[in-house]
Amino acid sequence: MTFRARHLLGIETLHPIEITSVLDLADEYVALNRASVKHSDTLAGLTQINMFFENSTRTQASFELAGKRLGADVMNMQMQASSIKKGETLIDTALTLNAMHPDLLVVRHPHSGAVDLLAQKVNCAVLNAGDGRHEHPTQALLDALTIRRAKGRLHRLNIAICGDIAHSRVARSNILLLGKMENRVRLVGPPTLVPSGAADWGVEVYDDMAEGLADCDVVMMLRLQKERMDGGFIPSEREYYHRFGLDAAKLAHAKEDAIVMHPGPMNRGVEIDGTIADDINRSVIQEQVEMGVAVRMAAMDLLARNLRAAREAGDD
Amino acid sequence: MTFRARHLLGIETLHPIEITSVLDLADEYVALNRASVKHSDTLAGLTQINMFFENSTRTQASFELAGKRLGADVMNMQMQASSIKKGETLIDTALTLNAMHPDLLVVRHPHSGAVDLLAQKVNCAVLNAGDGRHEHPTQALLDALTIRRAKGRLHRLNIAICGDIAHSRVARSNILLLGKMENRVRLVGPPTLVPSGAADWGVEVYDDMAEGLADCDVVMMLRLQKERMDGGFIPSEREYYHRFGLDAAKLAHAKEDAIVMHPGPMNRGVEIDGTIADDINRSVIQEQVEMGVAVRMAAMDLLARNLRAAREAGDD
Amino acid sequence: MTFRARHLLGIETLHPIEITSVLDLADEYVALNRASVKHSDTLAGLTQINMFFENSTRTQASFELAGKRLGADVMNMQMQASSIKKGETLIDTALTLNAMHPDLLVVRHPHSGAVDLLAQKVNCAVLNAGDGRHEHPTQALLDALTIRRAKGRLHRLNIAICGDIAHSRVARSNILLLGKMENRVRLVGPPTLVPSGAADWGVEVYDDMAEGLADCDVVMMLRLQKERMDGGFIPSEREYYHRFGLDAAKLAHAKEDAIVMHPGPMNRGVEIDGTIADDINRSVIQEQVEMGVAVRMAAMDLLARNLRAAREAGDD
Repeated sequence: MTFRARHLLGIETLHPIEITSVLDLADEYVALNRASVKHSDTLAGLTQINMFFENSTRTQASFELAGKRLGADVMNMQMQASSIKKGETLIDTALTLNAMHPDLLVVRHPHSGAVDLLAQKVNCAVLNAGDGRHEHPTQALLDALTIRRAKGRLHRLNIAICGDIAHSRVARSNILLLGKMENRVRLVGPPTLVPSGAADWGVEVYDDMAEGLADCDVVMMLRLQKERMDGGFIPSEREYYHRFGLDAAKLAHAKEDAIVMHPGPMNRGVEIDGTIADDINRSVIQEQVEMGVAVRMAAMDLLARNLRAAREAGDD
Repeated sequence: MTFRARHLLGIETLHPIEITSVLDLADEYVALNRASVKHSDTLAGLTQINMFFENSTRTQASFELAGKRLGADVMNMQMQASSIKKGETLIDTALTLNAMHPDLLVVRHPHSGAVDLLAQKVNCAVLNAGDGRHEHPTQALLDALTIRRAKGRLHRLNIAICGDIAHSRVARSNILLLGKMENRVRLVGPPTLVPSGAADWGVEVYDDMAEGLADCDVVMMLRLQKERMDGGFIPSEREYYHRFGLDAAKLAHAKEDAIVMHPGPMNRGVEIDGTIADDINRSVIQEQVEMGVAVRMAAMDLLARNLRAAREAGDD
Repeated sequence: MTFRARHLLGIETLHPIEITSVLDLADEYVALNRASVKHSDTLAGLTQINMFFENSTRTQASFELAGKRLGADVMNMQMQASSIKKGETLIDTALTLNAMHPDLLVVRHPHSGAVDLLAQKVNCAVLNAGDGRHEHPTQALLDALTIRRAKGRLHRLNIAICGDIAHSRVARSNILLLGKMENRVRLVGPPTLVPSGAADWGVEVYDDMAEGLADCDVVMMLRLQKERMDGGFIPSEREYYHRFGLDAAKLAHAKEDAIVMHPGPMNRGVEIDGTIADDINRSVIQEQVEMGVAVRMAAMDLLARNLRAAREAGDD
């Protein structure tokens, strides 16, 4: 078995071979999801609990569909982060859930590291669906699958990640994954939105879109939290779009066949021009969503295999 | 195949034969729902997503049960209409969902026409669960099935639709359906709650319950939005009940075996006297709820058949 | 058949043999829940509706998992108690649901007696998931199973129920169950939180933890509603913990092998010291959660058997 992890907490601890095995299996699930009968019994008899301490309609839906299509018994729990103020209480919640014997626990939490902490307390496989500014590994995996299918490979590509890098767990997980797979990653954004230590991450940093996108194979835009704008922190929405929003002129600096990505939901006219987002020759934004379900199916399938193997070995 | 529609967006575009085929199949599902084992695999392997931009506990529950009993993988998405201010964003939402490969998409939206717009953007079958003041086709179909089972036929009946016609998509879909099936439809309500153009719809308009109900086979009450009252717009609740609320005296003008309907939830003592609502010899209000599940099962079954046929024909 | 009840509305009407048969079957479901494949088709083809008029993430999750693992079609309905002001309207809600032909209806409601009322109006089996200050029978059953498994028996035990007795349906159901099984039950709490009539319930009442816990086999702590404190009603949180919170010094008065219970969620440092809650040699708090799922599976299985038998006998 080439995927050995017990949990999927982040990209940081994954080996490139593990990444490849998730993507290879996900390719098969893409085919299943496009078939007439999009259901298997791979996870039949297992219990999946989705525990979201932050709202996320899309990500939760993607995990929910992934589990249901694989035949798991799936339960959503809406948690109120407000009532979970102390780490102590998060652990009580974890222990309570653990006592219900889930097999797969999908967790999103506003605090970096909360999902790792929780994983130490439970007997099941934990999937990080985003924790603070830390990691969002399934997003990076779905982005990787999208790139691999569009470009035919996942190495030696020039990839620009653009916008609000500083607050983005999506950026962080993508930088880790794309680096492990030996791509050349550039970060492009206003200095206030790029972490000062970024130069140590093995990436190149630009504050100019024309330079940053030059000769790129992939242009990955990030979502901008509008509420952070107009606060002296970064320029107005309009000025931001002028300098960093992806439009045809800026995209012209990338390779002719460069693909455009966005994790969604988009702020059209802020991070990206609507025409480009909808251009099916350049934009792979819908494919990203499609790959999301497939990657989550693959990750849960692989984790469930390891869980079963560990249980059979009496290692639970 | 006598049901040819790809979507169920409204009654307006349905042929009478299509209406009859939904009702005939729904009759079979009524039997299934009354059986000990109320589950089939008709929709097994298909994904149903319920996307409600307006709260509706009853309608959503009815669709959810319908899908689960037919073996579909069912997912509910609570959408916040507030975050969907632009048509553009509704389309983004539609495209995102579409990329997850649902087969059946059930949508309720506060804006008339929003569900039609959405249906143009997706590859799956769309069911309108109510859009603004436009249509609510499954409500009209369940009302039709209730009438047909109570009266033994669905044509040449005198049917009074009473109350707040102007704001009611239920009224609109019912007027269309009952007209197509060659019934005589009357609208009864205060002039402020009956659209001025109603006379052109092939219906008779009354503002007096005694006249409007005379010789009727079916008395269909509508829900009154209480918040619209006492605003100079229409009279007080008390006065409204006095003039338009269904009580024994007013019902006496209808045929002796006339049935009483209400789409629920009822405002007892406003639109309808509680005693009449509970009179199992006259009221078919519970039957309407029961028929609701069956009609939705039938509609989803028929749409799924057409979807499968279109896919096999490579017409997706 | 030794379990004859049609509904599970409270412990009060259960015969000791019925209690034992729920616990015996629940023991089997504990094993299923610990297995690799934790799914059966016992309730396949049946519809379970969870209708919670009060939020309760844990209890609802426990019932939801129980039903899904038994193969039922499970639907959650979030009800707003605010919109259910009149008994009349609760009945309308019940009749509406009933028309959708559920088989099992799980109800939590803030008013004592509401679930009993509802059960009279429907054709399915009703499970009370907590009604006002009245009963919470599955909690008492899961506590009983936890005790029986830890102590090897469920009779002739000294059991102290401690804290806010007056507002607790958990306490009430436990007092009834433990009394029926011939245990010696003591209530320990400040006089303001122990009902004045408690002495008539066949229990002993103490307002001192040292005396109340002396020679006990089981120490059952209750959740304290913090919002009731500091209102002149009972002392401050700090003083409460000093007098009635379970710490090592107070627990030392119980038997050396006494177990510690809490229905959750805990207020650590108010009702109970965190160290004791986490002491796996004394605390069975996680086991209570585990037993919760198993007991609910057993109760629903037994009620479904009776429902099927009644239907076959034409007694529906």
